[in-house]
Formats: sequence, structure tokens, C-alpha cells
Amino acid sequence: MRRWNGWGDEATVMELPAHGAAFLEARVGAGRSLPDASLDSVLTQVPASRLADHPLISSDAEARVRHARGQSLPDWLAMREGNFGVFPDGVAFPETAAQIRELLAWAAERDVIVIPYGGGTSVAGHINPQSGDRPVLTLSLERMNRLLDLDEESRIATFGPGANGPQVESQLRAHGYTLGHFPQSWELSTLGGWVASRSSGQQSLRYGRIEQLFAGGTLETFGGPLEIPTFPASAAGPDLREIVLGSEGRFGVISEVRVRVSKLAEDERFYAVFLPSWPRALEAIRELAQARVPLSMLRLSNAIETETQLALAGHPGQIALLEKYLRLRGAGAGKCMLTFGVTGNRLQNAASLKQAKRLLGRHGGVFTGTLLGRKWAEGRFRFPYLREALWQAGYVVDTLETATDWCNVDLLLDRIEASLRDGLADEGERVHVFTHLSHVYGEGSSIYTTYVFRPAGSYAETLERWRTLKQAASWVIAGNRGTISHQHGVGRDHAPYLAAEKGERGMAVLEALAAHFDPERRLNPGVLLRD
Amino acid sequence: MRRWNGWGDEATVMELPAHGAAFLEARVGAGRSLPDASLDSVLTQVPASRLADHPLISSDAEARVRHARGQSLPDWLAMREGNFGVFPDGVAFPETAAQIRELLAWAAERDVIVIPYGGGTSVAGHINPQSGDRPVLTLSLERMNRLLDLDEESRIATFGPGANGPQVESQLRAHGYTLGHFPQSWELSTLGGWVASRSSGQQSLRYGRIEQLFAGGTLETFGGPLEIPTFPASAAGPDLREIVLGSEGRFGVISEVRVRVSKLAEDERFYAVFLPSWPRALEAIRELAQARVPLSMLRLSNAIETETQLALAGHPGQIALLEKYLRLRGAGAGKCMLTFGVTGNRLQNAASLKQAKRLLGRHGGVFTGTLLGRKWAEGRFRFPYLREALWQAGYVVDTLETATDWCNVDLLLDRIEASLRDGLADEGERVHVFTHLSHVYGEGSSIYTTYVFRPAGSYAETLERWRTLKQAASWVIAGNRGTISHQHGVGRDHAPYLAAEKGERGMAVLEALAAHFDPERRLNPGVLLRD
Repeated sequence: MRRWNGWGDEATVMELPAHGAAFLEARVGAGRSLPDASLDSVLTQVPASRLADHPLISSDAEARVRHARGQSLPDWLAMREGNFGVFPDGVAFPETAAQIRELLAWAAERDVIVIPYGGGTSVAGHINPQSGDRPVLTLSLERMNRLLDLDEESRIATFGPGANGPQVESQLRAHGYTLGHFPQSWELSTLGGWVASRSSGQQSLRYGRIEQLFAGGTLETFGGPLEIPTFPASAAGPDLREIVLGSEGRFGVISEVRVRVSKLAEDERFYAVFLPSWPRALEAIRELAQARVPLSMLRLSNAIETETQLALAGHPGQIALLEKYLRLRGAGAGKCMLTFGVTGNRLQNAASLKQAKRLLGRHGGVFTGTLLGRKWAEGRFRFPYLREALWQAGYVVDTLETATDWCNVDLLLDRIEASLRDGLADEGERVHVFTHLSHVYGEGSSIYTTYVFRPAGSYAETLERWRTLKQAASWVIAGNRGTISHQHGVGRDHAPYLAAEKGERGMAVLEALAAHFDPERRLNPGVLLRD
Repeated sequence: MRRWNGWGDEATVMELPAHGAAFLEARVGAGRSLPDASLDSVLTQVPASRLADHPLISSDAEARVRHARGQSLPDWLAMREGNFGVFPDGVAFPETAAQIRELLAWAAERDVIVIPYGGGTSVAGHINPQSGDRPVLTLSLERMNRLLDLDEESRIATFGPGANGPQVESQLRAHGYTLGHFPQSWELSTLGGWVASRSSGQQSLRYGRIEQLFAGGTLETFGGPLEIPTFPASAAGPDLREIVLGSEGRFGVISEVRVRVSKLAEDERFYAVFLPSWPRALEAIRELAQARVPLSMLRLSNAIETETQLALAGHPGQIALLEKYLRLRGAGAGKCMLTFGVTGNRLQNAASLKQAKRLLGRHGGVFTGTLLGRKWAEGRFRFPYLREALWQAGYVVDTLETATDWCNVDLLLDRIEASLRDGLADEGERVHVFTHLSHVYGEGSSIYTTYVFRPAGSYAETLERWRTLKQAASWVIAGNRGTISHQHGVGRDHAPYLAAEKGERGMAVLEALAAHFDPERRLNPGVLLRD
């Protein structure tokens, strides 16, 4: 059963090893626990629904609890405290596009707010109902999760929007195909959600971001369905896919998604290499990206993340041996771990590996083979479970991310880390901060920063600590040529910073589109554009 | 000096070899010439300008003649006949973004139509002034052609919008870089025009379409500049670049373009392979594209194009020897020529070549080395000059193009060719039609069809012949899942077919954007959206 107050399945439990706890205690102090609320106590808070009866809508209390919050840190704290604030008045589970249209018409007639809901994994406040006079209907797409068509010649698969990662991949795998879109939230997040929030997966270097995978589909709007046909490419005016991508439920509800799929690769391997220092590592991955070496993934941890990962990995004896070997080969203190993958046919993979090793060798890279790469691949979707493990140990963890041009990566990364590391200095609290670059392009890179801090004495004060940190880092991003999100969208949490990159006139364009599609502002108001 | 009534520089003359003329005569009948008008006779037609004096605006008659028409077939016929119809009232040559803003404000005040003008190479009627009450100002960007900044770390170059292909490449080459965007119109077309019309170059397989190369920039609108910052990727809502791309001068004037550039490649080679039949050739290039073999270009001629190219190539003796060799190796009648390129470092190129040869060999491909590939590379920008040579020989040539998913390529190609081949049957005229696929994707391919026919007894009847053919093929494209343009935009000529792919609701979105940017419809009205 899926956790009602945290990430993933209840059966999956991740524990922090003892030396991991000691590592954190040395860096931010002893952990502190806050009491968890029970589901029963939350259920009693759910008010009567303001919605009229409708056969497709459930106003069951537990359904409303389970669709009230996403996976942002404020959501987490609200769920653990049992302080949900607002619940949707009902949750609909349409099974067809016609039912979505029916629900939209019904909502328009009754002036009901509609929140499209995929996997509920937003980390930016995309699906949270707000208090207000208008009742709120959450529209869950979970029953529209099927592979509806597979055009093997054109490599286009048509899916319902509610298919989550495992549903997408298992249905494709049965025919020998893969979408190749693997965000960390893959176990729960959905195809429609990926499109609506411009998601990017861990192997985007090979398969592309969702922007490149999304070939066409249908957006149900208050004015009727907007159908976008598939073309391999087109010069016929502005591309309407790009208006659906990143629309975050503001313009309509995605009812069908066509994606570009690939044959399952003949061969796939992941490798780990240690670089002696951050400057050399940064130069190496920039060169790899700009030389177009056909790798399928690339992730570079900075020195603190490398140290933290090795400390939290378990098997301290083996790690000590590894570190001794690396030191002998020139990668001692300050070393940075690079994981990269090759995916494709064997001939191509061998050529790619050779190019990568040659280039990394020139930068002092110490190659360690596939063992750590395999570990990365096995644990690639486990990181979100770590929040639970850290919480049990008395720590709060959150992440934030951006992307910027290469000339600005180092500066922006430093400033983000500093803003978080020093963010709670007034309270005498330390914050443990580390970063990796996981999506590289010829032009620049994403920057993905994790920060760990201690809860305060209450949930409210803990939320305040988070707000202080998040705001400090977000203004650093907005003020230093970073995008407010590289892979998670805007939602409510990033909306205050959006104008810094879109500009006043860019915001006016988005407002004009919102006014065109939804003049009454009934679709997910407050998300993307502030109301 | 650039030709005033045709393509390219007057000094470049291409001639049709005698056996080429015989080849065409056998297929469509003896050529027929229509009399060319002189520039002087056209200059006398230019009426008085309706514009007030402005220091940045020329109302010189020759400037107005030279900016009245593009390079579509109707433009060609109008220029050859000297029957221009409408001239712009003036041509402005701004040198800065501030001057563009000044001109826009000036035009808004006086209710003047503004047509942004890059290289004047549109083949779809993008830059032609229309008759009407409002005076027309053509805004040529030709003086804004400089490389303004080169960020070597992020590989981003900032250009004025009026830089044409040679200006872009020569300024980058001085620093060791290339944009890698080589449309057939490269000698004359401009960066701003490529962006505004969603252009694609011959090596888009490596470098990407202009959509992938355009990193950001500035669009001057009546409401002020819309500045789009550069990010390697972003999930921060809909991508505003995608609204500028394909905007065709309707939303504003592009005043600055930032593009992603690459280091000049260490190694580049082009090869020719002959496949024994069209079905096998089609399957082979689909497999090459879907296997992601890192080629830099790929062009497959169908059997008639292959035959035509060999016939028009010159050196009949050598061609006969080649054909004998190919026949012996299994590629006889019905053979299809495939040209492909590898660009990059030597190690990667060797691996790519090996994969390509192996795959093509499985489909019966006969590899002929680099000679024909080199010929292609040398002549890659010469095709537009062929119109002049054919015209002198008494023939009219035009091309049209689309793109569709792989499952539909063969059917659509057949129907397009049939609609053209039989298009003048009522008049008893034959049309010589042939096709190549030059931009391949995992999902599908572009289809580029050339058709040759004879002029009728007058210019007006010849234009009518063209209209019959163009309409027949365009409705075939629109009715059979093709996009109305893969690489040349919509303009006026394709506007009637746009709704077939965008749909009524998609057109409404574009209309809403036009209304937002230009409520008085002063910017290039009738282009993209019909007025």
C-alpha cells in the first residue's frame, strides 16, 4: 500500500546505517524527532464535501486525504504533523477522455476548481487545493494508464496520461521497447505529469527530456479538445506541443499522450570514475558533453556529495579499501565521483567507452569499473525513500535544482551551497549541503543540491527553517542566471521567482494563454501563474 | 551583385549539360521560353511612396524592387515577367535594436504595415507586401549581421539577426567554431529568418534544427522587447523560444539571436551508397535513424531522382562505368542513391562508418567511397541556381516538402508524386517528378519533392499551371498526415492548409498570441494566419 504521509510503498523501508548517523551528527548535530500524526486523526478533520453528487466523483475522506498533498517538504511536514489545512472536496477517477470532458463541463457549470492529478509526486506544490469559496475537484488520471497503441514502424506509443513509470515501461517491454524516461520519481509519477511539468529522466542524455519524447496528444480544455498530431518535425508555425509542455494543468487536462519510444538496447553498462578535484572534474564533463560522446547518463558528485555518499553507503571496510586505492592513484581528499552509462549496440558502446576513458584519463580520472555503476543503477529510484530514513533518525532532507550555462555553473553552485550552508546561522544551526550535476548539455548543466538540517522544536518552526533556506537559495538562482527549475516545474513554490527569467513581457504571454484557455481561472489557479 | 530577378550572385552561372536537356525533353517535351523583363522596365512601375520621410528609410525605387519578392515560384514568374504587383513603400535598414524599436513605434503611430526581412529567400510568400490602404515598410535586417559575443565555455554565440550563412560561419570559423546550420539557401538566408521560419539544415542530424540551436535572444514587439535568456534546459513553464520560432514576423522583429555553436570538427566525410530498390533503401535509413548511428547527414534519393541526378551530372562516360559496376553488384534499374556524412572525432567517425556500412550491407547497399559524397558537399548550395539553368533551357522547376511518421512515408510520397505527375494531364502536359528524404528522425522523415514542367504560352497561364500542381500536392499533404512544411514555414502560400494540422482550437491559440502581440495586425498580416 502506498504511504499516505510520505514516499512510496509501505513495504519498502530504507534504514540509515549507524556510521551514516554518526557522519550527520558530526556535521549538523544530534537528530531530533517530532511526533507523527496517525491517519485516523487526519480523517476526522476532513470536512463535508461542497460538491454535488456525481457518479464519477468520490467524496470519501481517505481519498480526499490521499489527494491533498504532494511530496514537497512543506507537504511532508503537513502530512507528518497531520496538519493538512485544505482537502479537495472530491476526487474523480475518469476512465476515458469523454469522462474528462464531462467532468470539465460539470465543473464549469457549477464554478468548481479543477486540479489535474497524476502521481501526486510534485515537489513544488502543483496539486494542493487552496482554501476559497469555490469547491475543489481533484481529477485523478490513475485509471487512464493503458498502452492504447504502438506504432512499431514510427516508434510511437499512445498512452493514457495516468500511466506511471512502471506501467509505461512494463507495457512497452512486452513488445521489446522502452520510453527511457527515468526521473527519480519514476515509481509513482506519470506520463501526463511528466509532460505537464517538463520532466527530465536520468538517461536524458540518450533518450532526451520529455520535451523530445512527447510527440503529440490531446489536451482537454474548457473549449473542447486540442488535438496535436504527431510529426517527426515541422516548420508550420509555433509548436503547440511546447504550450502543453509545462502547462501544469493551467490550460487543460491531458487525456492522451503519444511518445517516441526506442527498442530495448542490446547492451547497457554504468561505470564510476573518480576525478582528483572539482575543477578538473567539471572541465572533464563539459568536454564530454561538448564532444557529443554518445553516453546515456552522466552524473558528477562534488567532493562533499562524494564523501557523503561513501559515508552513507554501508560496508565501511570496503569503502576504506576503495579510498586507499584511489589515493594511491591520485584521487584523495577533494575527489569527485562521476558515474556514466553507455546504452546501445555493443560496437557503439565500446567506441563510446573508449572515448570517455581517454578523455577522462587526460583529466586524471581513475576508472573503477562497473561495480559502483551497478550500485547506482540498482538504487536509482531509492533516494526519495531516504527522507523517511533520515526523518526517523531526526533529520530533515530536501533538494533543489536549477540549470545554467557552463560559464556560470561553478559560481551558481557555490552561491547556492553557501546560501543553504549559512542559511540557519542566525539560529546557530548547521546545514549539510552537497551537490551533483546530473543532466549535461553542450550549453550547460543542471545543478542538483541536497541539504540536510535538524527539525526545530515544532512543525511550524521547522517549516520556517525550510522556508528560510528555500527562499535564500531560490533568490540566489533567480538572481544569478539560473532557471527556477530544470526538471520539476514551477507549481506554487517556484511561482514567485518565475518572472525573474520570463520577464514582465514573457509573463504577459503566459497570462494571455491562460486567459485564452481558462478565462474564469478554474484550472489549478495559483500554479505557474500567481493569482 | 545579387540577381534582382532570381537566385544568387550574377557571377555564378550554372548550365544544363546537353544530355541533361535531352533527358528532360524525353520526359516532358521540348522546352519553351518566355521573355524576361529588364530591371529598368520594372523600375518605371514603382509608384510614389506613401511613407513620410524618415532618416532610416529608403524609398529608392531599386531598393523597393529588390525587397518586393522572395524566391517562391510565383515570385520567380512575377520577377521574370516584370509584373511585381505591389512594392513596399520603403525599406528601412536599422543597425541597432534601438533603431528597430524606433521604427516600430514610428509605424504604430502612423498605422504602417511592417514586414521583417532577412535574406529574402522565402519560398512560401513570407515577405511580399500586399495591396491595401495602409503603407508598407519593409524592415531589412541586413546591416545587423555581426557576431556580438562568443561565450566559448558555454558555446553560445550572439549574433545580429541579419547575419547570413557565410557571415555566420566565417565569423565563427575565425574562433574555431561552427553553427552547423546549412540549409540549401545558406548563401543568402539569415539567422533571424531561420528562427522565424523554423529552418532545418542539411546536417541537422548532428547539429539539430534551428529549434535546437536557438538558445535565446530578443524579439522586439509593439509592447517592447521580449528578452529570452539562455538555459541549457528548463522546466519553468512553457518555453517562450518556441513561440518566437515559427512566428514568421507576426509577433515581433527578432533583434538578437543567441545560438549554440560547436568546435569545428576534426574530421568530416561524405559517402555514397547505392541500394538495390526503394523498399530496401527506405528500411535501411529508418533503421539507421532508429539505431541512433551518429551520422551528420543522410539523404536518400528515390529511383527517379537517382536516375535524374546521374543524367544531369555531366561526364556520361564515367556515369556509364559507375552504373555498370553497380549493376554487377546488384544495384541496377530502380537503384537508389544514399549520401551520408560523418562529422566529429576520428575514433567516433570510424565507429559510425563501421555501423553504417554493416547495416547498409545487410540491405544490399553498394558502397562507392567518398567521391560522390564529395561531389554532393561541393554542390550542396548550387541547387537553387538550377532554376535559372532550367529556365534558360525552357523549363520550370519547383520543389515542395513535408514530413510524416515512418509508417506513412511511402504512402504520402507516392500520393504527392502522383498528384504532381498527373496534375497537368488535362492540358496534355507531362510533369517530371522525383523525391528525396533528407532529414530523418526516429519517428519519421522529411519528404522533398522536385517537379519540372514546361511554361505555358504566357506567364499568367504558367502561374496557373503551378497553382494547379501546388494545390493538388498541398491538399494531398494536408489530407494524409503530412505537415505543410518541414523546413520552410507557412508564409502566405501554405496558410490555407495550416488548419488541417493545427485544428480549429490550435489556430485559435495562434490567433490569441497574434492578438496579444499585435492587436492592430500591423506585423506581416496574412502570413501564417490568414486575414
